[in-house]
Amino acid sequence: MLSVKTPEEVLALIESEFSCVAECETVTLFDAIGRVLAEDIAAEEYVPDFDRSTVDGYAVHARDTFGCSDAIPAILNLQSEVLMGEGADFELEEENCCAVPTGGAVPKGADSVVMIEYTENYGDGSIGIAKSAAPGQNMIFRGDDVYPGKLVLKKGRVLSSQDIGALAAIGRVEVPVRRKLTVGVISTGDELVPPEQKPAAGQVRDVNSPMLTAMLTAFGAKVINYGIVIDDEKKLAAMVEKAVAECDAVLLSGGSSVGVKDAACRIIENMGSLLLHGIAMKPGKPTIMGKSGNKPLVGLPGHPVAAYFVTKLFVLPLLARLSMRETHNYTITAKISESLGANHGRAQYQCCRLERRGEELVAYPIRGKSGLITTLAGADGYFAISRDCEGLPEGAEIQVTVSMGD
Amino acid sequence: MLSVKTPEEVLALIESEFSCVAECETVTLFDAIGRVLAEDIAAEEYVPDFDRSTVDGYAVHARDTFGCSDAIPAILNLQSEVLMGEGADFELEEENCCAVPTGGAVPKGADSVVMIEYTENYGDGSIGIAKSAAPGQNMIFRGDDVYPGKLVLKKGRVLSSQDIGALAAIGRVEVPVRRKLTVGVISTGDELVPPEQKPAAGQVRDVNSPMLTAMLTAFGAKVINYGIVIDDEKKLAAMVEKAVAECDAVLLSGGSSVGVKDAACRIIENMGSLLLHGIAMKPGKPTIMGKSGNKPLVGLPGHPVAAYFVTKLFVLPLLARLSMRETHNYTITAKISESLGANHGRAQYQCCRLERRGEELVAYPIRGKSGLITTLAGADGYFAISRDCEGLPEGAEIQVTVSMGD
Repeated sequence: MLSVKTPEEVLALIESEFSCVAECETVTLFDAIGRVLAEDIAAEEYVPDFDRSTVDGYAVHARDTFGCSDAIPAILNLQSEVLMGEGADFELEEENCCAVPTGGAVPKGADSVVMIEYTENYGDGSIGIAKSAAPGQNMIFRGDDVYPGKLVLKKGRVLSSQDIGALAAIGRVEVPVRRKLTVGVISTGDELVPPEQKPAAGQVRDVNSPMLTAMLTAFGAKVINYGIVIDDEKKLAAMVEKAVAECDAVLLSGGSSVGVKDAACRIIENMGSLLLHGIAMKPGKPTIMGKSGNKPLVGLPGHPVAAYFVTKLFVLPLLARLSMRETHNYTITAKISESLGANHGRAQYQCCRLERRGEELVAYPIRGKSGLITTLAGADGYFAISRDCEGLPEGAEIQVTVSMGD
Repeated sequence: MLSVKTPEEVLALIESEFSCVAECETVTLFDAIGRVLAEDIAAEEYVPDFDRSTVDGYAVHARDTFGCSDAIPAILNLQSEVLMGEGADFELEEENCCAVPTGGAVPKGADSVVMIEYTENYGDGSIGIAKSAAPGQNMIFRGDDVYPGKLVLKKGRVLSSQDIGALAAIGRVEVPVRRKLTVGVISTGDELVPPEQKPAAGQVRDVNSPMLTAMLTAFGAKVINYGIVIDDEKKLAAMVEKAVAECDAVLLSGGSSVGVKDAACRIIENMGSLLLHGIAMKPGKPTIMGKSGNKPLVGLPGHPVAAYFVTKLFVLPLLARLSMRETHNYTITAKISESLGANHGRAQYQCCRLERRGEELVAYPIRGKSGLITTLAGADGYFAISRDCEGLPEGAEIQVTVSMGD
């Protein structure tokens, strides 16, 4: 008999039992946002590949401008003008200057650029410089951004738009990423009807399939919905087998009754091994997890709020593990709007709304019995109350994990 | 001549000059994640539509169990068994009980459910109850979740997976959302080559198009890329006109030189009006904004880091305004790893990496000249230094806006 595990033990179990299954594939830069980088990316060239000006002005030898001022400008000969997008493959002569636009190439020998605001064109081929330049001023030098071999991005990172910009800068238009994981979702329960159907007496709508599909899609997985399977062990076993064959991971949702849970356990044991039978958390206790080969099978609680937390806290980290994806859990500090009891000996998770009150961010717990889906609706995030905490007084500081459209 | 505006003034300008242009359209529940809800959603029925048990056990009249214990159980007659997914359209008799599964319907008259763990089936048609039940215990009543007319979600919300669950629960499988905005991106600059091309002397890759495309796509907009237009005012005007006709908003990126900026200003004035010429921020100062009819035109700085911040801080709020989308700016508290100077009289924005050091979150500023795209690569977020701040000492607390794969 497997014992109930704490959330920390479940995460450790995931680390030890599962490994990367998602192969590398190549996508174009325009399809790479949100994907998991499969390889370290190093630059192969210099960026920029030439010395550039960061202002509109005149490229100079800094020493030729030392000591000049508004009253006594340095007079330099205008040797040439560099046009945007063209090279400057010549040497700047002493006591000479060269007009360059912002982003334009700076000729050899020049070590700084004077902004046009501090110059005067006398119209006779000479330029007055009214401010002395420091070497390196208003310039970016070849390789300042990157040089061959410089590590730009580390594998495992979920690519952001900033990273896409960096990849474009170094010319990596084909990006090695992990293929998307395919996750199967099977709903079980004699009482379930599809959301579009009006429930008859004793029936309820299947909330978990669309919710899980949305969570998994937002996370970046492909989802196959296997529909609602009624509580028949043979039919369920056949469906699980089909899903395991077609997917990287399979979620069973619903079936909160003891009979269905037992059936799910037997099915998982027949197909591989059961790893977990219960998590010391509220809501979410009746969770099971097993594997068939390398493929995880998770039996989620039937209550949508419980299914939500188990998916957020364990299924998504499990999928991250299967694709070597870096994870972060950034939380924001808020004050709780009212006291909240907690004396369960197990970690407790609570949805909340957030509201700014002057400088403070206030978290309003969305209360309700655990079967109520509307305790999720309108939530801005959630927070945890650890199992050794006996409750939170009004105004206590809590750490909220914010949902960002996911 | 328009004066340079502060970031707060720019946001106020956006509020006053633009309004919603995105009509309502209907999508299915499975396509609604991340979309902007276009109408308030109220329930039209009771959820659940019947009194349900939240445990496996026996439905009872609580009063029939008062005072019972392990030693002196209450003996109740087993009247019936309710099966999962079936109604319980009968009255529970006094001194009787009825077997119900988790989630199953509870017969009329019953006001609580005793968990199976506290009962004993004597096998002779009677059940021993070893723990007295409180009225309402282990039950969810009809309409506890929602009832007709109850507001479930407010318009403007970006739908999360939790919201999708709530919509499924109330049977809203067709969801009214704002249509996606179409945003045109035009790159300008004689020095630009597409990212797949090796730059010749004096040329650089177009970093902004792929970066902006990624940002706008992650935000939920459709992007039309109009490619790179060389610095020719007539060609640029024609392209802007085409983009304005096809899109809800148009971004011009690049063209950091004075000539191109002036051309962009003239083009915007010819097509409507110029609203903004410069923002008091660093990086990002050379930003222009105007409108043609209801359609915003934004001229972004050519430097990728500047273009990133202007898009994040002003273009996305502008698009939110065009689709009545609720916005939040949640920040996390971190300590800065090193002192950072700032004495510019304008708001300064700085990318950073985040690292957890024990209980603390440490923000490492990614330094570099503003033209360097790799100051973006690998950033986990950014923070602002207000214009009246002269710098931050090492260890100062800062508020970091985290990028979450966007």
